Amino acid sequence: MTDASPIDAPRIGADAAYQGTPGAFSEDAALALLGPGAVLRPCRTLEDVFDVVAGGEARCAVVPVENTLAGAVPGCDDLMGRHDVRIVAERVQHIAHALIAPPGTGIDEVTRVLSHPVALAQCRRFLDAHPQMAAVPVFDTAGAVAEIVAGEQRGAAAIASRRAATVYGGVVLAGEIQDHPGNFTRFLVLKAGAAPEEFHAGCKTSLVCVLANQPGALARGIQAFATHGLNLSRIESRPIPESPFEYTFYLDVDPAPSADAIRDAIAELRACSRSLRVLGHYPV
Amino acid sequence: MTDASPIDAPRIGADAAYQGTPGAFSEDAALALLGPGAVLRPCRTLEDVFDVVAGGEARCAVVPVENTLAGAVPGCDDLMGRHDVRIVAERVQHIAHALIAPPGTGIDEVTRVLSHPVALAQCRRFLDAHPQMAAVPVFDTAGAVAEIVAGEQRGAAAIASRRAATVYGGVVLAGEIQDHPGNFTRFLVLKAGAAPEEFHAGCKTSLVCVLANQPGALARGIQAFATHGLNLSRIESRPIPESPFEYTFYLDVDPAPSADAIRDAIAELRACSRSLRVLGHYPV
Repeated sequence: MTDASPIDAPRIGADAAYQGTPGAFSEDAALALLGPGAVLRPCRTLEDVFDVVAGGEARCAVVPVENTLAGAVPGCDDLMGRHDVRIVAERVQHIAHALIAPPGTGIDEVTRVLSHPVALAQCRRFLDAHPQMAAVPVFDTAGAVAEIVAGEQRGAAAIASRRAATVYGGVVLAGEIQDHPGNFTRFLVLKAGAAPEEFHAGCKTSLVCVLANQPGALARGIQAFATHGLNLSRIESRPIPESPFEYTFYLDVDPAPSADAIRDAIAELRACSRSLRVLGHYPV
Repeated sequence: MTDASPIDAPRIGADAAYQGTPGAFSEDAALALLGPGAVLRPCRTLEDVFDVVAGGEARCAVVPVENTLAGAVPGCDDLMGRHDVRIVAERVQHIAHALIAPPGTGIDEVTRVLSHPVALAQCRRFLDAHPQMAAVPVFDTAGAVAEIVAGEQRGAAAIASRRAATVYGGVVLAGEIQDHPGNFTRFLVLKAGAAPEEFHAGCKTSLVCVLANQPGALARGIQAFATHGLNLSRIESRPIPESPFEYTFYLDVDPAPSADAIRDAIAELRACSRSLRVLGHYPV
């Protein structure tokens, strides 16, 4: 365990909130987006991040929404639907995993590897090739590095970013150990308040909608975009707790050729929806 | 920790494999589907369940695919896409959570509550109303009961099914503690081998497809079902590791009015797909 956890230090007026501990991939993304001098506020959970930005305690939030190996980040879409926030930018970040140990540990001594289950799953081939290493699922990649270094745990290593090794004084025993070099996470930058329904050519659009309870509503709603020459880059369905086996859809629409095209397509989708909200319209 | 973990006991020729420890919700579903005399094989991971059924070590598998509060069960769709299995039946099971402690523990003594993060999230209102109880995420609901009862952990409780209390000798301190009474999980029954492409009126159909890389392919593919009077009850997108930001779609089609309708709709979807496989065509 680390002492004086930075997660508990309140920091009013931060530039950006993110989920995790220093050294987390979300912190990497925030620094890349806002510059190395940004004042960042680490939060314990993704829900805390949304509360902090919606409540005005940070000027923006940087949150992971999907990963090219694991898919949608659990909880992110639901939190976006529930909070008064808007998307103002996105960033696709390359995710590279390293095997990190306390100083003095050799790779042959490692018998336990701590990391988030998603990170463990992304490094399966490496772990299969080292059968003496037992995978131990924990809830935070950078936090696992902090734990094994501070505890000087014999035979323990963690999977996290190279930067987490620097932050906590760990040693990289092996780099780029993920199965697929093409491992990317898409991050969103959120600000408080609703997105204005003003559209521009060349901007991407994110929407959340609940379709009308009519047969074919999904087909009609999606057709609206095709009719106007717009491609959907993402469609994510999330359950509605009060209505078993009905779904809220989160849609991303590729940059529009014209403001009219996206405005008209949204109007047509709205006509076959019980509710629809524009989550953001932002440059890519 | 429990001794002589039943997970490690090989049992060739089981009736059904499931993920978890005895007392798990998946075991409930398997017993409800196959009868109380069924010989069940608990597996540590969902991946093990698929390997066991695809390899012929169990006659079928019972796996959770989606929950009405949490959404898609992580990993299940991907595993279905990768394994030579077919869906032969489904069952929707009500999920009720109980707070379980070792005998002799009073509810006012509980300071730590262990459970899977999804179960903890489903009982948030109960936990908020009992602020002295700290939520501790672990990887198995029934396993958490086994752990706190066997360890006689002072002040510890677990959230799991009432049956897990019976299996491990725990005491139910509070029942039905989930936020929403309408908490359901949809389970699938899988068998080894591909689904025959033979269609019948009144049967539900599950499909997996990768759309052709053409604008509007998703709209055309979904329109094929609307044209034939078929409603899509579920659409789930999963990333393709080798192709960042492209997706595999898992579709469920409501029972068809005729065999021709579903056969023709699938042919039209196939025409705008790079690959398409029928995962199952089964009565509901």
